[in-house]
Amino acid sequence: MNPVEIIKLKRNKHALTRQHIDFFITGYLEGKIPEYQMSALLMAIYFNGMTDEETYFLTEAILYSGKVIDLNFINGSKVDKHSTGGVGDKISLILAPLVAACGIYVPMISGRGLGHTGGTLDKLESIPGFRIQYSIDEFKKILSETGLVMNGQTGELAPADKRIYALRDVTATVENVSLITASIMSKKIAEGADGLVFDVKIGNGSNLPDYDLSLKLAKNLLEVSKKFGKKAIAVLTAMDEPLGNKIGNWLEVEESLEILNGINIPDSVKVNNVLCGAMIYLGGKASSIEEGEKIAHEKISDGSALNKFYEMVSVQSGDLDYVKDWKNLKRPAYSKTVNAKSAGYVTEMKAIDFGFAAIDLGCGRKKTDDELDYLAGIILNKKVGDEVKQNETICEIFAEEESKLFTAEERIHKAVKFSDKKPEPKKLIIDILQ
Amino acid sequence: MNPVEIIKLKRNKHALTRQHIDFFITGYLEGKIPEYQMSALLMAIYFNGMTDEETYFLTEAILYSGKVIDLNFINGSKVDKHSTGGVGDKISLILAPLVAACGIYVPMISGRGLGHTGGTLDKLESIPGFRIQYSIDEFKKILSETGLVMNGQTGELAPADKRIYALRDVTATVENVSLITASIMSKKIAEGADGLVFDVKIGNGSNLPDYDLSLKLAKNLLEVSKKFGKKAIAVLTAMDEPLGNKIGNWLEVEESLEILNGINIPDSVKVNNVLCGAMIYLGGKASSIEEGEKIAHEKISDGSALNKFYEMVSVQSGDLDYVKDWKNLKRPAYSKTVNAKSAGYVTEMKAIDFGFAAIDLGCGRKKTDDELDYLAGIILNKKVGDEVKQNETICEIFAEEESKLFTAEERIHKAVKFSDKKPEPKKLIIDILQ
Repeated sequence: MNPVEIIKLKRNKHALTRQHIDFFITGYLEGKIPEYQMSALLMAIYFNGMTDEETYFLTEAILYSGKVIDLNFINGSKVDKHSTGGVGDKISLILAPLVAACGIYVPMISGRGLGHTGGTLDKLESIPGFRIQYSIDEFKKILSETGLVMNGQTGELAPADKRIYALRDVTATVENVSLITASIMSKKIAEGADGLVFDVKIGNGSNLPDYDLSLKLAKNLLEVSKKFGKKAIAVLTAMDEPLGNKIGNWLEVEESLEILNGINIPDSVKVNNVLCGAMIYLGGKASSIEEGEKIAHEKISDGSALNKFYEMVSVQSGDLDYVKDWKNLKRPAYSKTVNAKSAGYVTEMKAIDFGFAAIDLGCGRKKTDDELDYLAGIILNKKVGDEVKQNETICEIFAEEESKLFTAEERIHKAVKFSDKKPEPKKLIIDILQ
Repeated sequence: MNPVEIIKLKRNKHALTRQHIDFFITGYLEGKIPEYQMSALLMAIYFNGMTDEETYFLTEAILYSGKVIDLNFINGSKVDKHSTGGVGDKISLILAPLVAACGIYVPMISGRGLGHTGGTLDKLESIPGFRIQYSIDEFKKILSETGLVMNGQTGELAPADKRIYALRDVTATVENVSLITASIMSKKIAEGADGLVFDVKIGNGSNLPDYDLSLKLAKNLLEVSKKFGKKAIAVLTAMDEPLGNKIGNWLEVEESLEILNGINIPDSVKVNNVLCGAMIYLGGKASSIEEGEKIAHEKISDGSALNKFYEMVSVQSGDLDYVKDWKNLKRPAYSKTVNAKSAGYVTEMKAIDFGFAAIDLGCGRKKTDDELDYLAGIILNKKVGDEVKQNETICEIFAEEESKLFTAEERIHKAVKFSDKKPEPKKLIIDILQ
């Protein structure tokens, strides 16, 4: 087989065989196929797509480039959740301990912030001491003893994904449903869970804003899960405005603690409970997603989800006193209120712009080696649909460097729109696919 | 500017600006933009094409990656020809001395064999001693003193083209009209000619078999020539069967000598004379292409084209005695006749397959470091339209290694088709565009 011929086949809209795809991925990992041929193939895939079968073969090839964690030694259901990424999306922090509190094992491997979206690992690391780089053996031990583990991607799992993802990022080949599916699924299958819940974000703040493509992604994720013998549910959720009231690494831990303490942040709680409901249902502890949602509500009310969160922090070497002290607000040196320039109803708070504003403030990286400001971020006083007077505070922004506030403020002003008319409420849970 | 953003623009069907293109080509040459970003951009261009303006900017950026030869010190017209490549296409060898014999300067830079098509440099090097690697200063000196020079690409002219072409070759991004145009034109403009004639080959044996794309290429070449202030003519010629009767490096020099000695090889002579006619017209030595064709005919009849050929061989250090001795047939160790399996009229002799058969015999390279067999090749006894009896010889094949004959023979049998009916003659000169 010849790499150029394989690129040409895809370029000419032919479907690749399992052999073609294996040859290319293996050759790439072994250094026999150079980056420039991989990037040409990725761009050809971007334009001509992949069939469901090719997507499965690609997932398989990336998956078997590394180890697959075997969790069969654990007697019980193992269910994980994956979100395609959004702004203010702290659900993993609430959901993982909550579902574990139901007796379902949650083997979660998360990522860092990407583009304008935040990353669970960065949020966890805002807790002093919190470790997220366990080996596979440690991962298995913590999971079996604590019922959950939240870890970073290890180099042993799907190493091809890491290299291909980095290449896609610099060659404008990220936004393709098959490539996204293979990237997500290779890591999720490697994790060893037997049930998977996908939170597919739709809207300007998601990584794949187009509705039809997001729907196709949800279907692809379910299709590939099925081919690997995994139970799966995909929930399509809105990502037009930021989720919840707080954006930023520690600020999102703080909002998670609020929710685990029973404070109702309506949109965050709703998305959390539906996703937990789906996981509890897949884990066999409820007969429907709705029943699972009720159980999720109870696990917050009775404090067991919060206790599991504390247990996880403690097991993963996080500073539990720091966490328990959350009501003593931890804020960086500088802050500023962003005030409404007009009066009326808020009709739009563009999530993508709030995401970039958070990066401006120091919550995310502009270059891979940027250091994060864990306390920086945004607290929303208003959400879409709320009424505001002129000069009333829309949100408060925080940073360790004063100059960063101004860039972020300017961006936020452009991201917020007002109208005399109260906007129709939008659906938060757009669809649930099984 | 950011390379990923530029790739994304092209991927999303936007036209790139001169600044974008300059930034990308310059960055690539300086090693700031890696191969994998260039190949992603090339694939995006493959899919989304380029406007006429972008094609011009790309040509310009590649051209100015190197030196441009200034031929203004020569008082007289300088006209060159470029062929998009075919099988048995030895026209440059006849045409360059012929046009020079008319008092028009011919500054010709040629290439080596590519894919299934032959290369002028390889043919010239079948003449013992013939030098084709002169510096720019030597190139100018020979041109001004002899009236023509046939040279290889020097690293000083359009160096970006060499690197981009090599990358296109291994990333399945060769077949795009804008990329082909920029590659051809950057080298042709760098040569310093003030008139250009393009032989755009159409048919299975060309490098761009699709008729519409070839027509588009011809128009693009004229358009870019015009933007650089060059006079230009494009001749679209058929490349369905090999041109002339001989294929192979020395064999094509031999056929050129036959023609320069007045032997009529109808298709080669016709294509030669039309192209010469166009060059003589552009060079101001005829009032029309037709008149130029007549002059071309005279320059063969009166021996002046042949004498100019001898002069060039001598000036460029070729063994003139070897050349003059051409009637003492120079053949390699082994030969074989390929005989018709059916009787009837020859309806097809697929040029591309004859091209690959010639490579099988040793006329071209399968890997870049393969050594050529200069005497190997094919002599056609029959052409499309000819009647054959069963077992009558279609062609004779030659090689230095006996085993090579069998591979080539098999390929040729598949390339030739017969019918009871005499096929309609096809147009050789398909169109002439100015």
